[in-house]
Amino acid sequence: MATLNSNYLKLKAGYLFPEIARRVKAFTEANTEAASRLIRCGIGDVTQPLPSAVREAMHAAVEEMGTREGFHGYGPEQGYEFLRGAIAKHDYRDRGLEVADDEIFVSDGSKCDGGAILDILGDDNKVAVMDPVYPVYVDTNVMAGRTGEGREDGSYEGITYLECTTENGFVPAIPEEKVDVIYLCFPNNPTGAVASRAQLEAWVAYAREHGAMLLYDAAYEAFIQDSSVPRSIYEIPGARDCAIEFRSFSKNGGFTGTRCAFTVVPKTLTALSSDGERRPIHPLWHRRFTTKFNGVSYITQRGAAALYSEKGRAEVAALIEHYMGNAKILREAVEAAGLKVYGGVNAPYIWVQGPQGVTSWRIFDRMLNEANIVVTPGSGFGRAGEGYFRISAFNSREKAIEAAARLKAMKW
Amino acid sequence: MATLNSNYLKLKAGYLFPEIARRVKAFTEANTEAASRLIRCGIGDVTQPLPSAVREAMHAAVEEMGTREGFHGYGPEQGYEFLRGAIAKHDYRDRGLEVADDEIFVSDGSKCDGGAILDILGDDNKVAVMDPVYPVYVDTNVMAGRTGEGREDGSYEGITYLECTTENGFVPAIPEEKVDVIYLCFPNNPTGAVASRAQLEAWVAYAREHGAMLLYDAAYEAFIQDSSVPRSIYEIPGARDCAIEFRSFSKNGGFTGTRCAFTVVPKTLTALSSDGERRPIHPLWHRRFTTKFNGVSYITQRGAAALYSEKGRAEVAALIEHYMGNAKILREAVEAAGLKVYGGVNAPYIWVQGPQGVTSWRIFDRMLNEANIVVTPGSGFGRAGEGYFRISAFNSREKAIEAAARLKAMKW
Repeated sequence: MATLNSNYLKLKAGYLFPEIARRVKAFTEANTEAASRLIRCGIGDVTQPLPSAVREAMHAAVEEMGTREGFHGYGPEQGYEFLRGAIAKHDYRDRGLEVADDEIFVSDGSKCDGGAILDILGDDNKVAVMDPVYPVYVDTNVMAGRTGEGREDGSYEGITYLECTTENGFVPAIPEEKVDVIYLCFPNNPTGAVASRAQLEAWVAYAREHGAMLLYDAAYEAFIQDSSVPRSIYEIPGARDCAIEFRSFSKNGGFTGTRCAFTVVPKTLTALSSDGERRPIHPLWHRRFTTKFNGVSYITQRGAAALYSEKGRAEVAALIEHYMGNAKILREAVEAAGLKVYGGVNAPYIWVQGPQGVTSWRIFDRMLNEANIVVTPGSGFGRAGEGYFRISAFNSREKAIEAAARLKAMKW
Repeated sequence: MATLNSNYLKLKAGYLFPEIARRVKAFTEANTEAASRLIRCGIGDVTQPLPSAVREAMHAAVEEMGTREGFHGYGPEQGYEFLRGAIAKHDYRDRGLEVADDEIFVSDGSKCDGGAILDILGDDNKVAVMDPVYPVYVDTNVMAGRTGEGREDGSYEGITYLECTTENGFVPAIPEEKVDVIYLCFPNNPTGAVASRAQLEAWVAYAREHGAMLLYDAAYEAFIQDSSVPRSIYEIPGARDCAIEFRSFSKNGGFTGTRCAFTVVPKTLTALSSDGERRPIHPLWHRRFTTKFNGVSYITQRGAAALYSEKGRAEVAALIEHYMGNAKILREAVEAAGLKVYGGVNAPYIWVQGPQGVTSWRIFDRMLNEANIVVTPGSGFGRAGEGYFRISAFNSREKAIEAAARLKAMKW
């Protein structure tokens, strides 16, 4: 008799975004006039048009596909050389970081890669995540049977939660408990925090000492404004022995609906196999990629490669400037309203501490009803997010300005 | 200390296509003149340009993405309604088959889906595959720890191999051994065989009797010419309770490089959970999709939907006619050369039995050296493929005609 993976039954309902949608729907149905005033600062989805360099490259690729000579069928699963090479050169080697073209694996999304990476890791790894946390890191581990049962507060047995608070600037301290696989995300979603070089050095030192692996999510690196803040984990000496880096074109190139990302797996990275030997991870990831994936669309890869052209780089810079301009406007408005604000300086997310003792959902309801603004309740990202809320800077300038005016006017 | 998934170490090297590439390279380097005459009938990759209906839809979608109003960010992970609806209507409901829009999950490839489906199934399932077999079914089970060690002949302990031979017309008999999850692929890759209604009825009856699950790969359904042959497993009453169907736009719409496919998971399909209850699979697949995947590019989905337009359907029909025309030419040539030929009537693959006692690789070498044609050795698909070879009909007409002339001239 066919059996199902019962680990899925441990999963809590995907509570956060469906619950937001439910409350927004109830509000707009009851307040048809206010509904038209609604400004969504919830989900972290880009709003600006796809860069023209990308569109031109995609049009050309579509035309190529219409000719017998230019038609592209199955491509290399790991990505075309023209894109892997551009990534390795521009994002790494031009910045003095040693990354080879064949250490780049082009995929259809960082969320996909973050789940897929668990395939090649052993079931017995002790996993640590930051709290608050991007929920996908946790849910994919639950699905893979790497956790125990869920608790009342939404956390799971068997996972080590690294608390991120105002005290540690939302960069977690090295745990006393020994852990094997650690998810780090900087610039952080949801807090907008960045880790300093010294903080990342401490994590790399920990990983090397204990043979642990860092899964470093750098999806928001393009938003870093402060030149002293590392943009890649490979800026830290020794990271090639202990870290995988995830990057995406979703937020810098506006690819959330176009789908392209990449993962860096250094050939020097090893993990323990059941025979007690440390073995390289690269051949396993390569094998997984070629067996369970068929590569990203040729047309999409041509579009992604155009982000590295002169025109593409200028357009990306303009997009980042646009969203970070919004972040500044929104950040200053919330500060002016007397709330404590984090993030929004090197990240498109603003993390706001609500008034003492008020829950995230209570704040959400007030924002919705009084300012007609949708935010994301911090408690949706984990226990340590309670009392906070996240404002996304992904919006048009007009809406950011209007949202700022309303935020400023709120009395807390 | 981080550990790796040691099941990967059980995997045999991806022997087949790298070994073909090695031998072809050695040949072309040693025979520069013959190299220019080489005709590739090996890998099952399409060769004809992407249909103009698809290109027009993609151009329009690229333009839409360049406007603020038409920009699409994150879409529904399971696919846009416009595509799920078109699939459910045209491929199922218009043919009298009950499939709801939300039972369609749009993905970036059937290979991806075939691997991903194992995520939601229990570790204790006894898996059966056809032999010869598309190697990905087996390798993904090895990776997921559903098999024992590899054997000398390339097979794995713990998997039930269902022999497909001339005696059973390459449609396997119901096994005596009890199995839980059965991969069936019709029209078959590599043999080109199709299953009759009665044969599929027997499989559905077996699955329902034993609570087993059929993973039905119908990637080549568009090539079926004989109207009595089922194109979907859901043509068999009761299949909605026991079968998942995988389909792809790769071979009908020429999407091998553009990447779009779909999986049908009926809401009536259940499997046993660890608490001894049979539970629906649909919510698990939905959860996996939304957690570990971010949907197919909006632009690609617009292109796929155009395959269902009047113009798109006419272009697909012309592509199928083209490839099946090649199949007829190649099939007749091999028959004329005195070899026993299967497939190529309702499938783009021709499965040829070589002369008695000659191995697949020996035939491969003769074809390469004497006719300068690359085929795929049958033994690469499993033990039961020994002595056979596969010819792919995916080619231009000129090359198919030239290959046929050379095949006809060979002395066996």
